Amino acid sequence: MSQRLHDSTAAEMGSRQRNIAISEFFLKNRHLLGFDSLNKAIVTTVKEAVDNALDACEDAGIPPEVEVEIEALDDAVFRVVVQDNGPGIVAEQLARIFGKLLYGSKFHELRQSRGQQGMGISAAGMYGQLTTGRPMIIKSRVKGDKSALEVVVSIDTARNKPDVHKKRRLRWKPEHGTRVEVVLEGHYSRGQHSVDMYLKQTAVANPHVTLRLRDPQGSEHLWERSTRTLPPRPSAIKPHPHGIELGRLIQMLHETRCRTLQHFLREEFSRVGPKTADDVIRAARGRITPRSNPTRVAHAGAKALYSALQKTRITPPRSDCIAPIGERQLLEGLKKELDADSYLVLTRPPAVYRGNPFVVEVGLAYGRPGRRVEMDDAGRLSRTGQTSEANGELPARKDDTVLLLRYANRVPLLYQQSACAITKAVIHVNWKAYGLSQPRGGLPLGRMAILVHVASVWVPFTSESKEAIAAYPEIERELHLALQELGRRLAKIVQRGRRLEKELERRGQIEVYLPHVGSALQEILGLDDEDRDRTVHHLDETLHRKRSHR
Amino acid sequence: MSQRLHDSTAAEMGSRQRNIAISEFFLKNRHLLGFDSLNKAIVTTVKEAVDNALDACEDAGIPPEVEVEIEALDDAVFRVVVQDNGPGIVAEQLARIFGKLLYGSKFHELRQSRGQQGMGISAAGMYGQLTTGRPMIIKSRVKGDKSALEVVVSIDTARNKPDVHKKRRLRWKPEHGTRVEVVLEGHYSRGQHSVDMYLKQTAVANPHVTLRLRDPQGSEHLWERSTRTLPPRPSAIKPHPHGIELGRLIQMLHETRCRTLQHFLREEFSRVGPKTADDVIRAARGRITPRSNPTRVAHAGAKALYSALQKTRITPPRSDCIAPIGERQLLEGLKKELDADSYLVLTRPPAVYRGNPFVVEVGLAYGRPGRRVEMDDAGRLSRTGQTSEANGELPARKDDTVLLLRYANRVPLLYQQSACAITKAVIHVNWKAYGLSQPRGGLPLGRMAILVHVASVWVPFTSESKEAIAAYPEIERELHLALQELGRRLAKIVQRGRRLEKELERRGQIEVYLPHVGSALQEILGLDDEDRDRTVHHLDETLHRKRSHR
Repeated sequence: MSQRLHDSTAAEMGSRQRNIAISEFFLKNRHLLGFDSLNKAIVTTVKEAVDNALDACEDAGIPPEVEVEIEALDDAVFRVVVQDNGPGIVAEQLARIFGKLLYGSKFHELRQSRGQQGMGISAAGMYGQLTTGRPMIIKSRVKGDKSALEVVVSIDTARNKPDVHKKRRLRWKPEHGTRVEVVLEGHYSRGQHSVDMYLKQTAVANPHVTLRLRDPQGSEHLWERSTRTLPPRPSAIKPHPHGIELGRLIQMLHETRCRTLQHFLREEFSRVGPKTADDVIRAARGRITPRSNPTRVAHAGAKALYSALQKTRITPPRSDCIAPIGERQLLEGLKKELDADSYLVLTRPPAVYRGNPFVVEVGLAYGRPGRRVEMDDAGRLSRTGQTSEANGELPARKDDTVLLLRYANRVPLLYQQSACAITKAVIHVNWKAYGLSQPRGGLPLGRMAILVHVASVWVPFTSESKEAIAAYPEIERELHLALQELGRRLAKIVQRGRRLEKELERRGQIEVYLPHVGSALQEILGLDDEDRDRTVHHLDETLHRKRSHR
Repeated sequence: MSQRLHDSTAAEMGSRQRNIAISEFFLKNRHLLGFDSLNKAIVTTVKEAVDNALDACEDAGIPPEVEVEIEALDDAVFRVVVQDNGPGIVAEQLARIFGKLLYGSKFHELRQSRGQQGMGISAAGMYGQLTTGRPMIIKSRVKGDKSALEVVVSIDTARNKPDVHKKRRLRWKPEHGTRVEVVLEGHYSRGQHSVDMYLKQTAVANPHVTLRLRDPQGSEHLWERSTRTLPPRPSAIKPHPHGIELGRLIQMLHETRCRTLQHFLREEFSRVGPKTADDVIRAARGRITPRSNPTRVAHAGAKALYSALQKTRITPPRSDCIAPIGERQLLEGLKKELDADSYLVLTRPPAVYRGNPFVVEVGLAYGRPGRRVEMDDAGRLSRTGQTSEANGELPARKDDTVLLLRYANRVPLLYQQSACAITKAVIHVNWKAYGLSQPRGGLPLGRMAILVHVASVWVPFTSESKEAIAAYPEIERELHLALQELGRRLAKIVQRGRRLEKELERRGQIEVYLPHVGSALQEILGLDDEDRDRTVHHLDETLHRKRSHR
């Protein structure tokens, strides 16, 4: 075994060099796409299909209704079906969208969407095919068409091309929509990392969506929308000059159809008008002029133009390319799905990393319901007893780790919590300063959920499975600011709660002794029973008033 | 801004669908390849180039000598040059290896190598091009050739193809080798995440390698090899039947050139001889026979064959496709680079995940040098005072977190520690049981370094930047077993150390009092000075002997 094989020559090594198809690459690295365990395989498949469904519905202005059905076919083999009421997919695109990795409409556009890579759903199909040998079945009906198109498709993984097994037109009841069916090896489970949890958390951040689930036991679950108003549809923007790299600028100069540099700058970038364009070209000095032909700008010219672009003051990018959830909707979502005593929400103003606009939103649900002490106008204290219809649960005990809900472009992130910039930001905040316990280097403790949403035209994920956000400094900074502000507001609630708790305790003791004080006074002052009771009542009132005005 | 854009139709959405080139994908997601910060950009570039150089040298049976030179050209612009004494690269392959993502010789082979994706070095070039607009310059001379070939190449990112700017033959002093030059935006720093640290840790796990660094300040650093013996060259294996998925089997059946099923099983898999092949086919029953044509086996037949393969006992895969560092070399490496009092190493037997053989190795350097208490044969205690030439430092204080050195296929992993299965495994072990402190959910504390190496024909990384290992259960299990065993051995050292420390303290006290005891005895028994001294000496000896025989 330890004998040395014959050594290779350069020629032998050269002859072993080969192309690697992207589909082969991800077949071997399927954990990069979220298919590294049986449990995750089902969750990831549902997630990719639902994300696409929501994107399509919102793009078409249709309040989304998505049905998920999971059926156990065999030991560890499941059929996952996701059906939406979206606009449908045109026949020419159907096979490619589901049968090819790196094919899609969202990659080249700078606007917020759930999908961005053109990879997820085809990867789910590829995984199904790998583990069960079964192709995907797609049915889609475009609004206005008389029939639906059904395609049975798998991926030719050596070539990254769709392999269409069957294609036919058929009658289908829904007027429009798409239905995706994947048979795959998997494991269906409940708890933190489950289809339930993914759908529930999706409902929190998307109150305009109705979701249905039929699980393998045949139980039906429903998350009903609370509004039919869709979020504003984000519009695509062009790259911002401050977020572009030199190499990309050179590439753009080579590829543009604009005939003059001035036109190029105005046309290919956002926030560059005629005046800014002239300013930039003037600042670049040297051999380039507003009338230079962009394709003939040499390396030195491009470099000068690049540094002029960086130095010139240019308005920050527009932020209508992103659609944050918004404080009102976020609050509604939290209240709908999580039982708590207090809620806080905060949407930060837009910021920019590498030229990509993004927004950070945070929310918080604090305290087990029905346990909070409230003071009425008369200064009376009591425990509130209301319970809402939400079925979500905060951590049960004071020394449990808080529940952290992470979102990117309205999509809940269920896996790789420790690798995520959001988690790191929550850990980085000093929650002790806001009245919570926090072990060193860990998440804070308490009966609390923290929700964090990063919305961007391009979310930098730590892997293709889109489970954790990469730690870009600009994003880290915004996360930190948002969480700190949330902490400051939380501190007031925590302090007030503690104060009232103590007060309630003290008053309990006073209430025990007050009748005795009454009797003693009666004896000493020779009061009658009525006077005694009035005095006790008066004392009680005074004590309340005094404390409530502090 | 909140006005709703016009909604899209299915046709409009269809018209926006496009191909995404893999190079465009990674240009936008360059953090996936390790180019998310200025500091990391330089480290990643050096790492990719050095990894390739070491692979090539070892494949050709040449003890590797690699020179790294980093030169500051401008504010945040550096030239990185890596030159090796490898076999050189043939002219036809030069442009493609450096100017195309997903092109290489290691992806399709099942054997241990540092590279595996055919992506790293081209990605470094792409990053350089993006940030500085400068192409890569490659020089390579094949052994026996009279001249070297120089190629100036960049990547056509929209098409993932090499764009050759210049190509010429020239004289070059070295008889064989390759020189890669990338100009890129970056930041050169020292410390945990630095080129220094990467090279130093490479030296620990590769005692047969000589590394030189010339840093931007012009300082020269040298890590000299301690052996010229190369590690055994791993041989490629075929897939093992127990690690294959149904879909892959179906694909192999379709693509094979074998004419009979029996031949197919013997030819395309490892560990399947004629008898096993017959057993499997018999166990599959039904419509397939040893003489069936593989390309005509239907889905049901393939499924039966698949489950028969899973049920049949087949010898585990050969492990000569992996070359662990080995306990002796690992110990040498640790001693050479890390000053410590005690060292432990352990290589586990090979195991298998998803059909891929792998080996886990662990090592440990414990205790600040010169502080350990030793007992000689006569039972005398003293502190050892030796210091080695190693310049590496263990954590200084008892309550510092241990230094964790992670390796995959002999390559140090510097980033994403918290996302790595190795880190999780170290945290998961209960180090308190072995006498160390360990905060809940954290790494243990102490003046100690833990080294963990995972060697495999295919290391499942959590992203293309190959910085952390994905948590496959089989790998987690092996890591856990190895670390536990290491912990048990460590416990003995820790306990012995503590016992001797205490003993030394106690003896110190005895030594203080012994002369007084002598004087007292002299007085009581009327001894002369000589007798007194002999008695004291005798007492001293007896005390030592008594304790050393306990």
